Formats: sequence, structure tokens, C-alpha cells
Amino acid sequence: MAKNITSQTLQRLPLYFSYLVSLPESRKSGNISATAIAEALGLNDVQVRKDLASVSRGGRPRTGYITAELINDIGRFLGFENHDGVVVAGVGNFGRAMLGSDSFADYGFDIVCGFDCNEKLAGTVINGKPVRHISEMRSFCISENIKTGIITVPENSAQEVCDIMTESGIKYILNFASVHLNVPKNVVVHNENISITLAMLARRDFF
Amino acid sequence: MAKNITSQTLQRLPLYFSYLVSLPESRKSGNISATAIAEALGLNDVQVRKDLASVSRGGRPRTGYITAELINDIGRFLGFENHDGVVVAGVGNFGRAMLGSDSFADYGFDIVCGFDCNEKLAGTVINGKPVRHISEMRSFCISENIKTGIITVPENSAQEVCDIMTESGIKYILNFASVHLNVPKNVVVHNENISITLAMLARRDFF
Repeated sequence: MAKNITSQTLQRLPLYFSYLVSLPESRKSGNISATAIAEALGLNDVQVRKDLASVSRGGRPRTGYITAELINDIGRFLGFENHDGVVVAGVGNFGRAMLGSDSFADYGFDIVCGFDCNEKLAGTVINGKPVRHISEMRSFCISENIKTGIITVPENSAQEVCDIMTESGIKYILNFASVHLNVPKNVVVHNENISITLAMLARRDFF
Repeated sequence: MAKNITSQTLQRLPLYFSYLVSLPESRKSGNISATAIAEALGLNDVQVRKDLASVSRGGRPRTGYITAELINDIGRFLGFENHDGVVVAGVGNFGRAMLGSDSFADYGFDIVCGFDCNEKLAGTVINGKPVRHISEMRSFCISENIKTGIITVPENSAQEVCDIMTESGIKYILNFASVHLNVPKNVVVHNENISITLAMLARRDFF
């Protein structure tokens, strides 16, 4: 599928996509040029034009792209149209933020359920998504064939939750707990360490 | 300071640091070898040994490093000991998660205050951090000489909040709102788009 696309282009496509979907509705209903996107993202406009031409035939001289069409073309190319179910373990502040966000859908993810060890939270609904007791996560993930999980539990229970996820067939884990997780070879973990991101950002003259 | 260090080493040091600080207290009080760190992080142990030797003299044959000392050496080298004040604009789920997290301190950041447009939140305290009305953010940032800000407000008010931050002297912005922010040339924005992270993770065979 992506044979004729360089990995550099592939890395940039999600950025174009996120910029386009983040535009106000008024601009989404209009046209946009590769030059405008390049300026907004601080990229070379020849490069942006080439990137977009590789995934969309909608580009027109002067008028540019119909924004909605371009969003669809990039999203289709990146596979954002095939929705995957995602579970969230830990319904604290981060977990609520995940369940409460509607932006995942644009990228082909549906947060389908949150899980927590707090009996009081089990049975509640956040942003239309059910919250169940953590003890139900294994059977849920197996029966729903869930492949992606987000861990937002406290550090001391992250590995335990991670083990349940991998034992239930989850292959991709986004980990917000600042602990190193041990997983089987066929499972991929991305550690979302906001402290490191902040350090890299605020000390970028150093890094 | 980092003249004799390669940028690759510099990029890896925060990973060693986060792994070490994430260890349970029992292991933090003991020793750790470069080999153990390399195995845990899936890195080459010769490389890890070289990286650590460049910032710490604590390495001993067989016994390895005293974990607490190694954490201090890496942290000192990365400047994590000089604490910077950080403000959080938007005290929703993400904002609460930021205010509620104690892990920033390890990396040299103190979340000093949260700001929100909700009058009811102004005057409250979250995890010992005060929440003030957004109208007070400008004067606070100027008087406290704040250089780093985190934006967790809804998309439609993110640019407005961003403008207040940059006008108050903030130079580094971590943006959780999925909108593109326009900032002056001397300000750096890092867009934390969890949807893209998830897409890159769960479709890594594709990317």
C-alpha cells in the first residue's frame, strides 16, 4: 500500500491530517492549498505538495484541495477509516480525559470501555462510554478482540494491569504510568512520559 | 556542558533516568548494572555502559552503580535539579491530571498554578496547587517569571490562552488541545496529540 511512499512522507501525513481536522468547521468546508498547509506547519511547500499528491488526486492549480476531500484521502490512506476498539485501564484524571476525548475517532480508534478497581465507578458512563470493574477487563478484551489498550492506573498496579492486557490478546499498549513495563516479545509498549516531553521541550537548547 | 557527549547519548539519558526513578524503592536503595538497565530497556549494554560512564563516575566492576547516585548524576547532568515553575491553563481532566501528578518534580519542573475560566474552580486547590481564574494568568506568569506553560483547554479557546501565555513571557508550550497554535518565532510549541501517538503505535507495521 505504502510502497511508493517514503517513510519521511509517511511520518508527515498524520501531521497534515491533524492540522486539517483541527481547522474550524468554516475552513473545513472550503478549500486549502499545499502552500497554506506548509506555512501553517512551517514546512517546505514543494515537499508538502509532493506529499499530498502522493495520497490525493484532488489538488487543483490556484484553488488547491477541497479540505474535506483531502482529510478523507489522507485518513483513508493511513487506515484511519478502519476503526479499532481501545480499552482504558484506570479511570482517574487521565483515564477520564481519554474516555472524554472525541478526537480518537478521527484517527480510527473507538474508546469502547474504561476499567477501574473502584467498585463505585463500575457501572458509570463517561462521555457515553461504559466503565466496568477491572476484573471484567480480561473477558471483555477477549470477547471483543481488543488489540489496543491505554494504561492510566497508578504506578504500583501498572504491571499487573499490563499482564492482564497481554494475556487477553492486547498487542499495543499506550502507557501513562511512569514505570517500565515488562511485556512479551510480540507486544509493543509506548511510554507516554509527559515529564520527559516537557524536559525535552523546555531544555531544547540543551538537547 | 555537553560538549563531550553525542546527541544520541543525550537523547538516551532521560530514558535511563525515567527507568531508574520508576524502580520500586527497594531497588532504588540498592545497586544496578549497566547490563541490567540495557536489558530492561532493550538497548545494547556496551552503549549503555558508555553513556552512563560519560555522566557518572560511580560505575564499579561487578557491583555496578549505586542506583540513587546514578539517578542524581544523570539528573544533575540533565539540569533536572534546577526547578522551573510551570503553569497549567485549563483545569479539566487533563489539567487535573497535570496538577495531580508528582512526577514532574523529578525532572526539574514544579507545576505552580492551574488557571481556568470557571469561576467555581478559582480558589480551589488540587494536590496542593492553587487554581486561579484565567484572567489572573498574565500577571501571575509575569510576576513569577514563568517560562513554561501547559495548555489543556478546549480547542476553541486554545489560541486565546496561547496568546496570553506568549504575551506574558512564556517561551515553551506543551499543547494538549488538538489545534495548531500560532506563536511568535521565539516561542516553541510541542503538540501532544495522543491520537497520533496511538495511530503510530497500533499501526507501526504500516508506519
